[in-house]
Amino acid sequence: MKKVNIRASYSSRSRGSPILVVGSVALDSVKTPFGEVKDALGGSATYFGVSASYFAPVRLVAVVGKDFPPRHVRLLESRGIDTSGLVHAPGRTFRWKGYYEYDLNNAHTLDTRLNVFADFKPELSSEHRASPYVFLGNIDPDIQTGVLKKIARPRLVGADTMNFWIERKPAALKEMIRRVNVLIINEAETREFAGEKNLVLAARRIMSWGPGSLVVKRGEYGALLFSKNEVFAAPAYPLENISDPTGAGDSFAGGFMGYLAASGVSSSSKNIFAAMSSAVIFGSVMASFNVESFSLGKLSKLDRKKIAARYAEFIRLTRFA
Amino acid sequence: MKKVNIRASYSSRSRGSPILVVGSVALDSVKTPFGEVKDALGGSATYFGVSASYFAPVRLVAVVGKDFPPRHVRLLESRGIDTSGLVHAPGRTFRWKGYYEYDLNNAHTLDTRLNVFADFKPELSSEHRASPYVFLGNIDPDIQTGVLKKIARPRLVGADTMNFWIERKPAALKEMIRRVNVLIINEAETREFAGEKNLVLAARRIMSWGPGSLVVKRGEYGALLFSKNEVFAAPAYPLENISDPTGAGDSFAGGFMGYLAASGVSSSSKNIFAAMSSAVIFGSVMASFNVESFSLGKLSKLDRKKIAARYAEFIRLTRFA
Repeated sequence: MKKVNIRASYSSRSRGSPILVVGSVALDSVKTPFGEVKDALGGSATYFGVSASYFAPVRLVAVVGKDFPPRHVRLLESRGIDTSGLVHAPGRTFRWKGYYEYDLNNAHTLDTRLNVFADFKPELSSEHRASPYVFLGNIDPDIQTGVLKKIARPRLVGADTMNFWIERKPAALKEMIRRVNVLIINEAETREFAGEKNLVLAARRIMSWGPGSLVVKRGEYGALLFSKNEVFAAPAYPLENISDPTGAGDSFAGGFMGYLAASGVSSSSKNIFAAMSSAVIFGSVMASFNVESFSLGKLSKLDRKKIAARYAEFIRLTRFA
Repeated sequence: MKKVNIRASYSSRSRGSPILVVGSVALDSVKTPFGEVKDALGGSATYFGVSASYFAPVRLVAVVGKDFPPRHVRLLESRGIDTSGLVHAPGRTFRWKGYYEYDLNNAHTLDTRLNVFADFKPELSSEHRASPYVFLGNIDPDIQTGVLKKIARPRLVGADTMNFWIERKPAALKEMIRRVNVLIINEAETREFAGEKNLVLAARRIMSWGPGSLVVKRGEYGALLFSKNEVFAAPAYPLENISDPTGAGDSFAGGFMGYLAASGVSSSSKNIFAAMSSAVIFGSVMASFNVESFSLGKLSKLDRKKIAARYAEFIRLTRFA
């Protein structure tokens, strides 16, 4: 197996190949034991996009309302994100209101207002359709499939989903994941989707439905990467200060896909498992930064040096003879 | 920092320095979704002793009743365990009855009969007192301290405890851990003992009370090793077949302490953190074998080749560039 030269690909000046992300841009009101924010910038495409932007160019497709603050668009653009696919529709922006108690693995939803997101029909330009890397945030699986049908010949496709779709649209979800190379979902969703309590067997069953790889997110317990014959386990970074876990999963996916786009691998590369293993660590790095502040506070103010330093800490954290 | 030569120390024919274990030998009746056993061999000293016996000579100090089946003593002795400290007292052997549901991290106790264990007063021979490595299973912290006061000059001392003692005898527990080099407890107990929700801060607080190192066991999520300035994270082995988690923590401790005894490090060795990191992996290896069968079914039938093979699987499981 050929080794991926991470250092070379990660620190090279070329910024990797473009990633298309389709998902939500939202205004979140969140309370945790460590503080609270009101109508702060959030959404799966936002967290993913800002996280991935440190690795590769990002093209964002989403919808917001007329009330969406221009400063949030400027923040996305300051990270070099192509916002030509961000539609400003009549109406209000998608809003989520929730809280966390000390168990930061469980979000409690107080209110969800889809607003303009209820009628989200992603429109893709010819440039969008030519994107080599694609990430589908957690939206209706029929819409996810619709997007994928329009992408000419992607090098690698990742997707997220949630219990809502597993319970309501399992057939559409299975149709979607047939077209996906790596599904990134959390542990409880893995068991629920597969209908199997044992995580290894559950992962194998889901992979039998299409995706060559599965990333199981376990919150403060890290992540597992499964492929047909291999498993890779990564811890989460043990943090002293956690402010807000909102967006951790999407920041993880952004670091994961971002690194893959930076290294140029495709789903059929021989070194794909090794590349995805490093990608899981970069995902964990980005998620660890994200939870240290509310909204995009910390995630939007990183640089490659800080990211590389925390990657090195993951090496120390997991090294044994 | 000097590197530990694991391969050399582990595969050498010299069987390492002796470990004294003081704890329980019990008869367990356990039901899980995968089967059940009645009055099967169990107890913290049993699981620890059999697990550690693959690495170093084990001296076991415990008490059983007159009803204790001689075949169980023969099993311990077949593993080369010195059972001269196993007292056969008038009365019945300690019995535990419990069950697990699909969430194998939580044991549900149906019945506990201390029997002869209620009056357990460990008696140590002069050979016991000269043991260089000591592990105190989960028993009354006053008894644990009493044992430690009798040990001449141990090279390294490890101990376990549980919420029962944290809640009932916190002062005695603090007195005990002052004399211990490494405390091996589970995640919820770490938070409870420290009175701190954040795991990193909780670990640091407990270490400020004495032990130079802390191992936090997280069941199917692996383990964390803390020392003053370093952290090491190990995953659990992702298993397809789990039969019974009883004894996983003690099997872990047996592999952990066993490896340290085999490598000959002391609590003041310069390479102690590196040695403990490898020891955490050996602990995880032994725990992973243990949960694959009920009682000592699998743990008592291993060999160094199987152990080395699974250690190699942990290397593959955690390797990234």
